[in-house]
Amino acid sequence: IAKEVAKLLEMKAQLGGDEGKHKFVLKTPKGTRDYSPKQMAIRERVFNAIITCFKRHGAEVIDTPVFELKETLTGKYGEDSKLIYDLKDQGGELLSLRYDLTVPFARYLAMNKITNIKRYHIAKVYRRDNPAMTRGRYREFYQCDFDIAGQFDPMIPDAECLKIVHEILSDLQLGDFLIKVNDRRILDGMFAVCGVPDSKFRTICSSVDKLDKMPWEEVKSEMVGEKGLSPEAADHIGEYVQLHGGLDLIERLLQDPKLSQNKLAKEGLGDMKLLFEYLTLFGITGQISFDLSLARGLDYYTGVIFEAVLLQQENDHVEEPVSVGSVAGGGRYDGLVGMFDPKGRKVPCVGVSIGIERIFSILEQRVEASEEKIRTTETQVLVASAQKKLLEERLKLIAELWNAGIKAEVLYKKNPKLLNQLQYCEDTGIPLVAIVGEQELKDGVVKLRVVATREEVNVRRENLVEEIRMRTGKP
Amino acid sequence: IAKEVAKLLEMKAQLGGDEGKHKFVLKTPKGTRDYSPKQMAIRERVFNAIITCFKRHGAEVIDTPVFELKETLTGKYGEDSKLIYDLKDQGGELLSLRYDLTVPFARYLAMNKITNIKRYHIAKVYRRDNPAMTRGRYREFYQCDFDIAGQFDPMIPDAECLKIVHEILSDLQLGDFLIKVNDRRILDGMFAVCGVPDSKFRTICSSVDKLDKMPWEEVKSEMVGEKGLSPEAADHIGEYVQLHGGLDLIERLLQDPKLSQNKLAKEGLGDMKLLFEYLTLFGITGQISFDLSLARGLDYYTGVIFEAVLLQQENDHVEEPVSVGSVAGGGRYDGLVGMFDPKGRKVPCVGVSIGIERIFSILEQRVEASEEKIRTTETQVLVASAQKKLLEERLKLIAELWNAGIKAEVLYKKNPKLLNQLQYCEDTGIPLVAIVGEQELKDGVVKLRVVATREEVNVRRENLVEEIRMRTGKP
Repeated sequence: IAKEVAKLLEMKAQLGGDEGKHKFVLKTPKGTRDYSPKQMAIRERVFNAIITCFKRHGAEVIDTPVFELKETLTGKYGEDSKLIYDLKDQGGELLSLRYDLTVPFARYLAMNKITNIKRYHIAKVYRRDNPAMTRGRYREFYQCDFDIAGQFDPMIPDAECLKIVHEILSDLQLGDFLIKVNDRRILDGMFAVCGVPDSKFRTICSSVDKLDKMPWEEVKSEMVGEKGLSPEAADHIGEYVQLHGGLDLIERLLQDPKLSQNKLAKEGLGDMKLLFEYLTLFGITGQISFDLSLARGLDYYTGVIFEAVLLQQENDHVEEPVSVGSVAGGGRYDGLVGMFDPKGRKVPCVGVSIGIERIFSILEQRVEASEEKIRTTETQVLVASAQKKLLEERLKLIAELWNAGIKAEVLYKKNPKLLNQLQYCEDTGIPLVAIVGEQELKDGVVKLRVVATREEVNVRRENLVEEIRMRTGKP
Repeated sequence: IAKEVAKLLEMKAQLGGDEGKHKFVLKTPKGTRDYSPKQMAIRERVFNAIITCFKRHGAEVIDTPVFELKETLTGKYGEDSKLIYDLKDQGGELLSLRYDLTVPFARYLAMNKITNIKRYHIAKVYRRDNPAMTRGRYREFYQCDFDIAGQFDPMIPDAECLKIVHEILSDLQLGDFLIKVNDRRILDGMFAVCGVPDSKFRTICSSVDKLDKMPWEEVKSEMVGEKGLSPEAADHIGEYVQLHGGLDLIERLLQDPKLSQNKLAKEGLGDMKLLFEYLTLFGITGQISFDLSLARGLDYYTGVIFEAVLLQQENDHVEEPVSVGSVAGGGRYDGLVGMFDPKGRKVPCVGVSIGIERIFSILEQRVEASEEKIRTTETQVLVASAQKKLLEERLKLIAELWNAGIKAEVLYKKNPKLLNQLQYCEDTGIPLVAIVGEQELKDGVVKLRVVATREEVNVRRENLVEEIRMRTGKP
């Protein structure tokens, strides 16, 4: 009997409660979220810091559709391609949601035959990844991209991209951070001198990319076990990828008997040296580390690659600061536009992508902890009345204020209590109340109340707009 | 032979040109487009006008994911549901791209048990409609929504929504416009007294909705031929739907022997009267027309509905101004949140959606016609040099400027010609050039050149930031 009851209860639950009404699953899709007004206020701050920086560096802005032809995305992301969201075939073109903003940018350049542009693009991208939302990893997330396309003298645009990351992470006051830099050519040269066969460069590169999440032993066993690399080659790689440093390390590797014999590696190291010279002029080498373990998974990089991580230093006993994850990344991709051009014409590009979700998580936690009160509206004044039957007068007054550009609200009640109106101001942070009453109407004035001090003054109606502007500091 | 040649040529075209290289179709998906930097500059202006207005009315802002669970959208849009984009089933949840911002808003309210909010939301929505892009109709397009949710006294929030449309269309200076207003209850009452069976209300309402695109005779033949309505009932509807006016028409219909006997119609007309009284207080009845032909296709409306159209008055011979299409619409939907709430709890809502694509098309054409030069960057100064070998000095100076918050650019060349640097300023509208040279470096100054006047002054390096701020009016 108990079993039968359980069955019936389950059936009832499935059918929904009363009257067999269909029960909706009330949720957002896996790996996505809504932003509440308070979260939006924090998000706006982050966007503002980023956009201000991008504009400071003279970038234009573009936008592209959220989906692309499926074939536009095909063959650009290597092993990550399986994470692309496809749209259902409902007749017509086969479409996929954009996986990043870089490939759509390259498509845009080729389509419009643009060989020279510095642009930013802030938009959501989509990855069918395993979400870890508490750590700021989502399936729908924002990327804030800044890219420089064009044929220029080496490493000047590359250095500017790193300067931008440095400025943004400094501005946002997220604590200490480190920008790791490497070069695909150095990686490929390293693979070559370690004895990795050409055909395995990309897949071994993917393994190296996991070093920030896995210990070397696991990565090595993936290389040897899954990917069939010889243990000697793997050990050889293991020696290189533990190296990190600055100009000194670059100089040392330029003298390395094996690497210095490899054309690609030599080119990469030469450019890395130039990059560090420019970064020295920018005064930011303190937060930059040339790191041979940095690989980055995406297929399209051809030169410099970089990734910024935040360092956790709460625990002073820890010798080396722990990384809490990547908040920005990028690199040079000189071949991508050519993949779209009918004649294969190349447009060299370098760019950076800021991932705001982790940054946002950190700032949100900080706001929660500080109990800082965040206003979610900008309303300057509430139009209120102390007596009944004054709805019409409130509506007339608020229309005057709106028409003069004053941010004003009114309660949608015919006869609201004054106390409720004042409470609304307290709750939402509205600084002023404009009170209309029989006497004030007769005298041609409005009573202006300052919520914080409870001070009240009668202001002549024709001076009200001016008075509100003055008191809220918004001309 | 000719046939065979044609076949071969076709095969060659399919294979792509040289070397059997795969030829990409370089396009955005049907019904979508990119925004160039110039278009973005115009789009920003439109957004600013709209957001400023929404904030003036005390709205908070939220955001929701671009896709929802498929079942969240099911059964909300009536005949339009066939236009929803579905995502491919790649395992996991079944998803669809949002069709509007209203249903996600209702889902958000129910999910978070919010009974009271005034919010805006600006985001792209997706409809597999037949695009007419020259007239600003796209498959991916922006909606700018403002909604008021909560139990309030009748028609006050509704009137504010109309005031908002009026403010935005006035601010954008798009020429004359008209806001048509009707009420679902008046429509339903009208259908009832005309003898439309209850089961046909929604589908007949869809036919009426086509009156802005089709003449009455065609709409009638759809009602009678396709939808099986009696010709008498159709004719009866035909009489009503040609009526439009203001308070006078409302009064007349309140006396209409048939309509006044219908409970729904009477309620609707009573509220319409109240609405017009509030609109009179707001001083906007001049652009508002109570119009019995306005139906709006979406299923979820329950009360007031409205739609704003721009009026074309270029041709003075035309008696009545011609409508160039809807730029805003909205209405009351008191039942939608209840559809998501497990207990069916209702949250009354009213809202407006501004469609920026048509507005944007008009403004873009206007900018093209006026030959107005639109800057797409905000750069204040170019850091330049007159002699060779000064790249390092340029980089040092620009880092100083960036760190001080100055918007600055530098050409990514080791030894750019001064003329090219000045030309870059002319092309992109940069007003100032900061020139470093051997002599200036010795003297501790920078030569500041005003691009427009060619005036040049030496500024001491420590005063440069201040001087640039002063001359560009950006403190």
